[in-house]
Amino acid sequence: MDANPILAETTRGNWVENRHRGAYVVIDSDGRIIAAAGDIERPVFPRSSIKSMQALAIFARHAHEQFHHSQQELALACASHNGEDMHVEVASGLLSRLGLSEADLECGAHQPINAAARAALRAEGAKPSSLHNACSGKHSGMLSVALAMGVPTAGYASREHAVQQQVRAVIEAVVGEPLSEAKCGTDGCSIPTYAAPLRAFARGFARMATGNGLLPEMASAAERLFDAATTHPHLVAGTGHPDTQIMTAFKGRVMQKYGADGVQCGAIRDKGWGYALKCDDGSLPASLAMVAALLLDVAEPDADQRALLEGFAHQPIKSVRGAQVGEMRAVAR
Amino acid sequence: MDANPILAETTRGNWVENRHRGAYVVIDSDGRIIAAAGDIERPVFPRSSIKSMQALAIFARHAHEQFHHSQQELALACASHNGEDMHVEVASGLLSRLGLSEADLECGAHQPINAAARAALRAEGAKPSSLHNACSGKHSGMLSVALAMGVPTAGYASREHAVQQQVRAVIEAVVGEPLSEAKCGTDGCSIPTYAAPLRAFARGFARMATGNGLLPEMASAAERLFDAATTHPHLVAGTGHPDTQIMTAFKGRVMQKYGADGVQCGAIRDKGWGYALKCDDGSLPASLAMVAALLLDVAEPDADQRALLEGFAHQPIKSVRGAQVGEMRAVAR
Repeated sequence: MDANPILAETTRGNWVENRHRGAYVVIDSDGRIIAAAGDIERPVFPRSSIKSMQALAIFARHAHEQFHHSQQELALACASHNGEDMHVEVASGLLSRLGLSEADLECGAHQPINAAARAALRAEGAKPSSLHNACSGKHSGMLSVALAMGVPTAGYASREHAVQQQVRAVIEAVVGEPLSEAKCGTDGCSIPTYAAPLRAFARGFARMATGNGLLPEMASAAERLFDAATTHPHLVAGTGHPDTQIMTAFKGRVMQKYGADGVQCGAIRDKGWGYALKCDDGSLPASLAMVAALLLDVAEPDADQRALLEGFAHQPIKSVRGAQVGEMRAVAR
Repeated sequence: MDANPILAETTRGNWVENRHRGAYVVIDSDGRIIAAAGDIERPVFPRSSIKSMQALAIFARHAHEQFHHSQQELALACASHNGEDMHVEVASGLLSRLGLSEADLECGAHQPINAAARAALRAEGAKPSSLHNACSGKHSGMLSVALAMGVPTAGYASREHAVQQQVRAVIEAVVGEPLSEAKCGTDGCSIPTYAAPLRAFARGFARMATGNGLLPEMASAAERLFDAATTHPHLVAGTGHPDTQIMTAFKGRVMQKYGADGVQCGAIRDKGWGYALKCDDGSLPASLAMVAALLLDVAEPDADQRALLEGFAHQPIKSVRGAQVGEMRAVAR
C-alpha cells in the first residue's frame, strides 16, 4: 500500500515533531475531481461525518410528515453536539413528542464534549445521560424512523434492525456504491459504520448540495437538511467548535462536519462540490488543519473566513505555562 | 523523505481504520543493531523519554553528595508521574531539604494524570500545583543541580541557564552526538528538548545499562538511576501506568520510559541493549503497542511478562456502551 502524502505536521521550536498523512478529494456531482491528494479509493469509515446522509432516512420513511421535525431537530440529527443545554433540550423535545424518553436511546451516556457543560453537570452533582451523548440528536431521529416504519424501537441501533437497513439504503443511494458487510464496524454510539472510498462520500455530498443524481424527494430532503445544519450551526456542534465556527462564518455556503478518527466531510454548496478527507492516523487536530487548508484552497473564502481558516490551519501548541512552543500546521501540497 | 513502515493500526469491525507509522532501533553499546525498522537517523525530540539521562546532571555536579538524594527521589527525577500523593510527597520532601518550595518549580501546574488523583483534588476543592506536574521530580532534581553549582535557581528551566547547559552536556556525553540549537524546542514543562537520531538515544540507553563508553563516575550514576527507576516503578509513572506495569513485571531487567508525542525509550539491562522508538504521528497508544511488540520480540519475556505485553500490543477499542468494537494493535514486521 503506497503511503499517502503528509498533509499536516507539528513543529516544536525549529524542528518538525509529528507528521500526519492523509487523503482528500473535492468533487462535483458528476464525479469531476476539483482537487485531490492521496489514495481516494481506499475504503475508510466515515463515522459521524455523514450524519446528514443518515438523516435522509427520516424523509425516506416520511417520518417528517408524521412528526413534523423542526429545523432545529433536523440540525441536531446531523450533529455531533457538545452536550450543552440547547442540545439536550432539542433532543428531549423530539423524544417527548415521539412519546419516548432518554431511556429509549441506545447511544450510551458520556460526559458532554463541551468543558463548561461538563463543569456545570459536575457542579450539580449530576451524571451525564444519553441525552448528553454527542449523537443523541441522530439517535432521536432514528427513533422517529422506527415509529414511522411501525417497527419496534428496541434494538434500533443494531445492524440487523430495519432502521439501520433503511439508513444503509439511503447512504448507498447518495454515495452511489454498495456498502458491504465485509467493511463494516460499530461506531462509538453503537450503530453500524461502513467503509467506502473518500471519492464516494465526497460525491455524495456534492449530490446532496445540488440534488443532481438524487430522486426529487431525496434532493428536497438533502436541501432541507443542509439548510437546517447551516442555519443552526450551533446545534450541529456547539459553542466554540470549529464546525460551528466554519458554518457560521460561511453563512450557508459551506456544510462542514467532522467525524471521529480524523474524518472531515462537507459541501461547498454554491459551487456544487462535495469533499471528504481522512487523516490516516485518526488525529482530529491534524484533520482540522487539513480541512482548513482544503477550504482555503477551493472555497474562495472572504477575509473573515480566511482568518478563521488560517487559525485552524496553524494551531498553537503550548507549554503547561501557556507559552507557544510549536504549532500544528497544514502542509502545502 | 521516505515513509516509515506501518507499525501499528486500529481496526473497527472487520476493517482497518487508522494506520500509525514509526521507526525503532534496539542496539548495543558498541552500536551493533539488534533490531530496527524505519529511518533511525532522522532526528526526533525525545521529550520525557530521556529523563534518566537528564538526571545524570545530579551526579555530574555532585549534587547527590551534598543533598543525599534518596532512591525514591532519584526514581522521581526519572519520572513522568501520575500526580498521586506518593509523587507529590517525594517531590516536596526533596524541595524542603533543598530549602526550596513548590514556588521555585518552573514546570507549571496541571491536573494530575491519574484520574483518581484528579477526582480526589476536585473533591477537596483544591487546584493542582506544580507538584502535581508529571515533571515535578525532574524539576526538583534540577533545582538541586542549581544549588550544587552555586548558581541562581530562578530561570533554571531556560535554555541559557547553567543547569540546562549541564543537562545538555550529560546527554551529549551519553548519546555520543552534539545536540544542536538548530534542532531544539521547548518541552511542555518549559525545559529545552533537542532532536537527535533514535539510534543515538538507543545507544545512550545501552551505555547507561552497561557503563560501556561512559566515564566510571557516570557509569555508576547510570546504574544508580536505573536501579532507582526499576526498584520504584510506581514512582516513575504510577498506579496502572504501562511503564510502571512493564518495569514491575520485568523485575529490574527492563527500564522503560514513555515520552510525549509517541516516543518510547529504555533498556534491556541484562542484555546490555538500549532501545528507542517514535510513532511518526505522535500517538501515545500506538507507540505503546509498538514498544510492546518490540519487547515481545527481543526481551525474552516469561509467561507473565508476555501476557502483559500482549495486552499493550492489542488494546481494545470500546463503544460508549462498553462493547469492544475494535483494537489498537501492533503490526508484525
